[in-house]
Amino acid sequence: MELGVGGSNPPCCTKKMVKEKNNKPSKELPIGFVDRQEKELLVRDFIISKIKEVMIKYGFQYLETPSFEYSDSIGKFLPDKDRPEEGVFSFKDENKWLSLRYDLTAPLARYVAKNYLEIPKPFKRYQLGTVWRNEKPGPGRFREFLQFDADFVGTKSLQADAELCVMISEILEKCGLAKTDYIIKISSRKITEELFKKINLNDNQQKLTALRALDKIDRLGWNAVKNLLSSGRKDKSGDFTEGANLKSKDIETIEATLKRKVPETDDLIEILKFFKDYNFNNFEFDPSIIRGLEYYTGPIFEVNLKFDVKNNKGQVIQFGSIGGGGRYDNLVSNFGNYEAPATGISIGLDRLVYALMQKKDFKVKQSKPLVICVFDKNLIKEYINMQSKLREAGISVEIYPGESKLKKQMEYANKIKSPAVILYGEDEKKSGKPTLRNLITGEEKSFEMKELVNEIKKNI
Amino acid sequence: MELGVGGSNPPCCTKKMVKEKNNKPSKELPIGFVDRQEKELLVRDFIISKIKEVMIKYGFQYLETPSFEYSDSIGKFLPDKDRPEEGVFSFKDENKWLSLRYDLTAPLARYVAKNYLEIPKPFKRYQLGTVWRNEKPGPGRFREFLQFDADFVGTKSLQADAELCVMISEILEKCGLAKTDYIIKISSRKITEELFKKINLNDNQQKLTALRALDKIDRLGWNAVKNLLSSGRKDKSGDFTEGANLKSKDIETIEATLKRKVPETDDLIEILKFFKDYNFNNFEFDPSIIRGLEYYTGPIFEVNLKFDVKNNKGQVIQFGSIGGGGRYDNLVSNFGNYEAPATGISIGLDRLVYALMQKKDFKVKQSKPLVICVFDKNLIKEYINMQSKLREAGISVEIYPGESKLKKQMEYANKIKSPAVILYGEDEKKSGKPTLRNLITGEEKSFEMKELVNEIKKNI
Repeated sequence: MELGVGGSNPPCCTKKMVKEKNNKPSKELPIGFVDRQEKELLVRDFIISKIKEVMIKYGFQYLETPSFEYSDSIGKFLPDKDRPEEGVFSFKDENKWLSLRYDLTAPLARYVAKNYLEIPKPFKRYQLGTVWRNEKPGPGRFREFLQFDADFVGTKSLQADAELCVMISEILEKCGLAKTDYIIKISSRKITEELFKKINLNDNQQKLTALRALDKIDRLGWNAVKNLLSSGRKDKSGDFTEGANLKSKDIETIEATLKRKVPETDDLIEILKFFKDYNFNNFEFDPSIIRGLEYYTGPIFEVNLKFDVKNNKGQVIQFGSIGGGGRYDNLVSNFGNYEAPATGISIGLDRLVYALMQKKDFKVKQSKPLVICVFDKNLIKEYINMQSKLREAGISVEIYPGESKLKKQMEYANKIKSPAVILYGEDEKKSGKPTLRNLITGEEKSFEMKELVNEIKKNI
Repeated sequence: MELGVGGSNPPCCTKKMVKEKNNKPSKELPIGFVDRQEKELLVRDFIISKIKEVMIKYGFQYLETPSFEYSDSIGKFLPDKDRPEEGVFSFKDENKWLSLRYDLTAPLARYVAKNYLEIPKPFKRYQLGTVWRNEKPGPGRFREFLQFDADFVGTKSLQADAELCVMISEILEKCGLAKTDYIIKISSRKITEELFKKINLNDNQQKLTALRALDKIDRLGWNAVKNLLSSGRKDKSGDFTEGANLKSKDIETIEATLKRKVPETDDLIEILKFFKDYNFNNFEFDPSIIRGLEYYTGPIFEVNLKFDVKNNKGQVIQFGSIGGGGRYDNLVSNFGNYEAPATGISIGLDRLVYALMQKKDFKVKQSKPLVICVFDKNLIKEYINMQSKLREAGISVEIYPGESKLKKQMEYANKIKSPAVILYGEDEKKSGKPTLRNLITGEEKSFEMKELVNEIKKNI
């Protein structure tokens, strides 16, 4: 608890507030937000440590931009609306709107434009950070999540795009995945571009509708997507989605092109050459991957897990990608007069954590403290001495932190999954020998006080 | 860059948006927010690793609550206002207000109330997280910052309060501070409580005004505070702050009490006994510390740095505390029918990082990549081979990530503070010997390709 820099009169839970309101504040969380427990957080920490290890090896710079940006910097600018509240969380701040970042790419583009003269060119940076989506919450659909992004800004070289795929693979393998556990799918925005040119599709809005339809091949299959490319589609709930109104001949051309097994665009042919030089082969060409973001201009990639992932009900689900990315050569130039062709990749860490925790044989060590039971308050100094000696030896330990009877203390030790308790009362004091009770085996053992650290190290 | 879970049509920087607006989006950050660079982030990571190490040893559980809470859960509930925008950042979400957390304590109280039946009792948790303050920004005054909190919930034992002080000291010393670099100041809310009783001060609003005045002793000195305790005070800018309107006799009593050197309240006497058992003596009793939060009910503590800290202009400043905390026995019961006396401590990590970076002899290692220069695009496979070998050996290295002439490549290597470049062109290929140029000494050295890893390890 801290007052913080210059804070005064914080609007925090005071008795007064509760009395005025005359009922209790909510104990619940807003929908789309969750509390995260130690087990999950330790897996996340483990992944982050591996990411940082790889980022150093690959020479990426560590950067952190703030949660808030001016709304127009992150592209949410709706002059007709009093409050831009769709998609992003926004606040009005002295006549200008601020928004919580929606991704880490727009803030990077803003950072590069702002610091263009000072940064190295090309600029390689990575960032770890929460992003927020003010979308309609639903089951398993969160409104904040943690992302990892790595980008090359200021290079047209497709070696950068290739290296991002190699790099993300190294991270996943460092996290314990085998080559059979994941695949990098690659495609290029050029495929759809050339395709649209071929079928004479020039209207921007129509192109976008078609792209959004194609983005759903994975989830809905070709039949549904073909409806979305023609007159439209009614889903199970009865909701109707307007289609792109393409001719059936053109839809056939699209299907044939996107079912090809070998890439034909220049950019992908070059990337495949780099993959060969990198000795990297855990990828597959899949022209049906689209990635929704409108700003992609070249190669796109998607990271997919191949092992079974279950939902909360224990059912195996189609888990989908844990991230992806691609080339976006025009984003930075939106901010100023600088040209900065770029490519980047992004991983949804919470999704990766969720999947990894379900993987057989995946384990992250979770240290639980020994508990020194308080038999006798007059012996507190002895308890503190034992605790200090054990902690100095790097052992996780605590004196029971309350004022309850021994039964409650044992219940507490079991509840926190403590490996063992140390018992030391009048008898033990007389003999000079504390007792160690292993809570997994139930065994008890007495030993000389001077052997405390050794005995714990040996037995726990 | 990621589309994220179920996202579609993200409101992100598209060319269309820019065209519609017909001017460029802002490159600037909203006031009170900053970009953070690698040097600072590495120091922060170092501190966090030490915190986690100590937290495990002390048996605290790792928890993360979300950024958003219902506004009434974090105490910001202003029924008269259309939009609760003072102090916190809030959004309206289907008739209920959400706010970004203002601290980590109110979310903890909400968490405990929500999960009371499931959690261990007592409950020891730590959390690292950003908090937001929608306050008037000013120089050096941020609107988001990173906090570390550790709390004991569900115990009246003052050993918990004592242990928090011992623990925070261990963290600071693990970060490299000497005992002479910091001090824990302790006091108790009971001192002012008994004092107010003694001078018959019963009005809640008047008490609060008096507490806020006393909270400023450090910054303004006793003379200004005495004005604030009587009729009021005009500051340098001419702004007038209404006083607590106490009698001068009572103000004298307050001053005399708060200048005492020895604690007289039961709680502090007990804590001092615990400190002795812990062999902890890096504290001082200072009844003039108040800590602003209204919810404190007992002992309070403050962590102060004692070494010189300079501002951006190079002037030594009165840096103030980097955190503190205290006992708050009634906060959790605000949420429900559970009694959960508690005590906690909070550290402002950005402030600690800022100070630590100025400390002489404090250094955190920053690895910069070697750069393999691209002499000849036809040799790219050889460059990739060298890079892979070095990375496999854990060495930070990159092939120059662009498509520029050698001069630009050298400028780049210098800009990123690379320790050395590897030169390998036609000549080197013929001789089979790459050249290593040390960018610090300027020395060049040729070696056999098979000695690559060894030579780099030896020379860099």
